[in-house]
Amino acid sequence: MEPVSLGQFHLVHNAFSFAIAVMGAATAFFFLNRSQVAPAYRTAITITGIVTLIAMYHYLRIFASWEAGFAVLNGEIKQTGVAFNDAYRYVDWLLTVPLLLVELILVMRLSPSETMAKATKLGALAAIMVLLGYPGEISGDSGTRWLWWSLSMIPFLIIMFDLFVGLKASIESQPPAARGLVSAARWVTVFSWCFYPVVFVLPMLGITGGNATTAVQVGYTVADIVSKAMFGVLIYMIAARKSESEPQH
Amino acid sequence: MEPVSLGQFHLVHNAFSFAIAVMGAATAFFFLNRSQVAPAYRTAITITGIVTLIAMYHYLRIFASWEAGFAVLNGEIKQTGVAFNDAYRYVDWLLTVPLLLVELILVMRLSPSETMAKATKLGALAAIMVLLGYPGEISGDSGTRWLWWSLSMIPFLIIMFDLFVGLKASIESQPPAARGLVSAARWVTVFSWCFYPVVFVLPMLGITGGNATTAVQVGYTVADIVSKAMFGVLIYMIAARKSESEPQH
Repeated sequence: MEPVSLGQFHLVHNAFSFAIAVMGAATAFFFLNRSQVAPAYRTAITITGIVTLIAMYHYLRIFASWEAGFAVLNGEIKQTGVAFNDAYRYVDWLLTVPLLLVELILVMRLSPSETMAKATKLGALAAIMVLLGYPGEISGDSGTRWLWWSLSMIPFLIIMFDLFVGLKASIESQPPAARGLVSAARWVTVFSWCFYPVVFVLPMLGITGGNATTAVQVGYTVADIVSKAMFGVLIYMIAARKSESEPQH
Repeated sequence: MEPVSLGQFHLVHNAFSFAIAVMGAATAFFFLNRSQVAPAYRTAITITGIVTLIAMYHYLRIFASWEAGFAVLNGEIKQTGVAFNDAYRYVDWLLTVPLLLVELILVMRLSPSETMAKATKLGALAAIMVLLGYPGEISGDSGTRWLWWSLSMIPFLIIMFDLFVGLKASIESQPPAARGLVSAARWVTVFSWCFYPVVFVLPMLGITGGNATTAVQVGYTVADIVSKAMFGVLIYMIAARKSESEPQH
């Protein structure tokens, strides 16, 4: 664990607290407003809320782990020697990233066999992607980080390609009122997911010490908020729009 | 962090605890009674409850931060050297102030395009207003405080003008039974929001040390209770009244 300045400590601390509040608020919204969408879309909204609930839990742990690492007294900051636990993020992603893909697939409402096939394929690739990233994340050596980053990028690029090309084709089969939102969800996924490999390489691009720690922690937090809570709101809006345009509501 | 007297410490401590109880009670009320209003108003009530839930979370953090700053033993108070975290309030407002405007816009039930346009415009202005206030809040220098206060007042006044003039026009389009409540919500918004810039300037008006700390903390707490919990009850009453006067319930 690298030393950070007092300002950096507070910035990361407040970013984590902000993430706890956002994930908790998002979870309450999805769980309560689940009844506002047609039954066919409720499983997608349940999973959307579960993703932010899991993230809230991990941000509570991440917050506590960050606090344990530093002692701030009379405007001075010292390291306590307790290590920050990077694993919470990867355990979170191992659960939430496959679920994020499942919520997107469910809200598309493809045929049952297509849903199963896509969810299994993309979910498995997402889990492999997260597992391959972890050995790099806990290493301080640039060569090791680049190796695991490159390996993790293989499933990442397959998923991105599948979503970008596969989703584009199925936009045509969506009700006209929902097409704009589905297209937005596709762009938010690609945009927010690209944050992660970029944040990962920051310490390998000459950013060092407390600056690297701060950039990585704040970067991942922003990416998590966009890819889980904001993306979830888009999924909810697609489900609500499609519920209106379908007769079974 | 300025030293406070034992009485001031307890007053602020009890005000924070009161806020936790009020925000928690309000959240339970909105979440449980959400099903009592017509489906068209349920999203407004969900968001009303989420605002008080986010506020409860931050008051738990604010309470803990206040406790950590002082050691009270045998009737004597000492500072521990742990700084009080002002950022929790601003992180809270960054989330809740745009949401407060959204709940007011949603309960008005304007056309979807008008709802989207108003929510985006007022929500963005509210976020800018909060961000501009923060550099002033954490400064002990009166000149710096006045500068950021003035900048923050620009979006503040635009929002106030929009609500006061814009809401007045749409009161006519509300069902007669709800007009009095909508008018009250408009006044409560303007009245409770004006509290914040007044509390902010107290330390610049010759109030110093522990008196300033106490006035600011108790002042913001009262303003939060009025603008979030009491305002939320008004939103709920408007939703309930409008549900009665519309046939789809």
